Amino acid sequence: MDDDRVARFRQERERLNEIVLTQGSLQTKRFFALDTKVYQDGALPARTKELLGLVGSLVLRCDDCVLYHLIRCRELELSSAEVTEALDVGLVIGGSITIPHLRRAHEAWQRLSTDEGTK
Amino acid sequence: MDDDRVARFRQERERLNEIVLTQGSLQTKRFFALDTKVYQDGALPARTKELLGLVGSLVLRCDDCVLYHLIRCRELELSSAEVTEALDVGLVIGGSITIPHLRRAHEAWQRLSTDEGTK
Amino acid sequence: MDDDRVARFRQERERLNEIVLTQGSLQTKRFFALDTKVYQDGALPARTKELLGLVGSLVLRCDDCVLYHLIRCRELELSSAEVTEALDVGLVIGGSITIPHLRRAHEAWQRLSTDEGTK
Amino acid sequence: MDDDRVARFRQERERLNEIVLTQGSLQTKRFFALDTKVYQDGALPARTKELLGLVGSLVLRCDDCVLYHLIRCRELELSSAEVTEALDVGLVIGGSITIPHLRRAHEAWQRLSTDEGTK
Amino acid sequence: MDDDRVARFRQERERLNEIVLTQGSLQTKRFFALDTKVYQDGALPARTKELLGLVGSLVLRCDDCVLYHLIRCRELELSSAEVTEALDVGLVIGGSITIPHLRRAHEAWQRLSTDEGTK
Amino acid sequence: MDDDRVARFRQERERLNEIVLTQGSLQTKRFFALDTKVYQDGALPARTKELLGLVGSLVLRCDDCVLYHLIRCRELELSSAEVTEALDVGLVIGGSITIPHLRRAHEAWQRLSTDEGTK
Repeated sequence: MDDDRVARFRQERERLNEIVLTQGSLQTKRFFALDTKVYQDGALPARTKELLGLVGSLVLRCDDCVLYHLIRCRELELSSAEVTEALDVGLVIGGSITIPHLRRAHEAWQRLSTDEGTK
Repeated sequence: MDDDRVARFRQERERLNEIVLTQGSLQTKRFFALDTKVYQDGALPARTKELLGLVGSLVLRCDDCVLYHLIRCRELELSSAEVTEALDVGLVIGGSITIPHLRRAHEAWQRLSTDEGTK
Repeated sequence: MDDDRVARFRQERERLNEIVLTQGSLQTKRFFALDTKVYQDGALPARTKELLGLVGSLVLRCDDCVLYHLIRCRELELSSAEVTEALDVGLVIGGSITIPHLRRAHEAWQRLSTDEGTK
Repeated sequence: MDDDRVARFRQERERLNEIVLTQGSLQTKRFFALDTKVYQDGALPARTKELLGLVGSLVLRCDDCVLYHLIRCRELELSSAEVTEALDVGLVIGGSITIPHLRRAHEAWQRLSTDEGTK
Repeated sequence: MDDDRVARFRQERERLNEIVLTQGSLQTKRFFALDTKVYQDGALPARTKELLGLVGSLVLRCDDCVLYHLIRCRELELSSAEVTEALDVGLVIGGSITIPHLRRAHEAWQRLSTDEGTK
Repeated sequence: MDDDRVARFRQERERLNEIVLTQGSLQTKRFFALDTKVYQDGALPARTKELLGLVGSLVLRCDDCVLYHLIRCRELELSSAEVTEALDVGLVIGGSITIPHLRRAHEAWQRLSTDEGTK
């Protein structure tokens, strides 16, 4: 992962979300709203919910979704040990077919940690 | 999606199909023939079948397949509202894990519509 | 499929939906509302949307979902040829792994058609 | 879910695990050991890990796995609100195709809560 | 697995295949023909192809498909060690989500081996 | 596939594996060890196991995994006919949604064969 993959990811994500929400229907917008709501603090803290999102994304093998949840995990100050253990659960559930995604997840997390470590 | 993604996609697809059909067996060829047949006009019009292909591809999260069916939808002159509603069905069935593919689908459709709009 | 599988399916579905909507959160209810909305008449007729739901369900291999959409297809008076062609698209997209579900789908459709044929 | 589905589930699971571990190889046993280890207390508490297992199982749509993690969630005294929110995350990630599993999950949770409530 | 699960499985499979091939289209029939062809002796022996089918079925988590290929493996006289090693590959690729299917596979194989052992 | 895709793939894989094994836990390492063990000679020869890995990877649609097993198949001197037949089994099991991966698999195999053919 080169230096600004995260920055480019955010920018591209925002650009495409704008297209979806312009072209999409009311139902599309409602789905997107719901997708935000379920990760907010409630009976479970947002930190836990982001880990749930991370594992769900890893076992379904979606790199963009994994990266998004890792960024959120970093923002919510989850530790590397916590993220690693969550990824381990995903690896065991989802099997070796998740390994290419696990590799990219660990690389992204290393990068995110380094960036933040220099703040 | 830059300007000629569709052109490059078609070209690459054709180039690789040639390799598959050269290296493949009789069974490979039969599968490819079947894959063409099921989308042809019958009791259901080809337009509906392309939408079926589009939703099947979105819920199984295959960008190449989604783009292929969008190109076909454009050729068969489906409207943006029709395509959006089909994508909504796919989004609800397949969940937020389809969103990265949905984003690229809406972007591709926008591009395809613009191209054709200038004919 | 014995004679009243459809009746039992509907009853069980209703009973469990009640549990989900009692125990579920506001977000759960919103998802269920959305799941109803996307199949209603719009730019695409409900008939087409049920076929989209049918193919999405077959390729993701969910018997309950397939049966639900077949019941709706029957109610909306889709023909056997239309349903068969939609199932063919799903079979080719999803491969032989869908065959056990395809078998149960054809059996359910036969039953649904016979029931209605005697009206 | 009838009254002793949980009891029967545990018994059947144990009986079959015995067959697997008798017939299986050293690698099979190692996988099973790993599958136990990743859910134990560590940087993340076991309670969180069971929720990760629950969401992973829901989005991959495995009823047996969902039920197993719900039983563990009950043993670790997670609240209904916590479990519901975790299931909501799974529902949004995995889409309506998870609903038949979500229904059975809510029913199982209701049963597990009632059983325990009378202790 | 009770004593005649295999017999009932075969019978039910045959009964449903008849429905599919009666109601299905020419394309449905072609797909079924192809599904037979790819498992026949060729550059790879049928024995190897059945193991390929077994692993493909396990990682995609289809009990009916797994049982079918196990029956074929038994007919082609694959050993328990060979079948176990193939299942191990599937377990590692597909992860713990395959375990409920792996349990039923090992139980079925035990039953199939016992039946044949008494011949 | 340009000329050194295989070389770059190996290098990148090695680089990322190092990150995973540095950041990962003991459980991560155990999973990786298991992932190596199940492909070694045993009751089934490594050649057959690589074909099992290839089909498992194709039906689960993981390009990196497919390429890895193709490289191993080449090293173990499987013939083009053997690889094609294994890919055919995967295509029929997994359906047309695997075709984009099948195309890249055949292209990679062609390249791998040419490279080796000139040795």
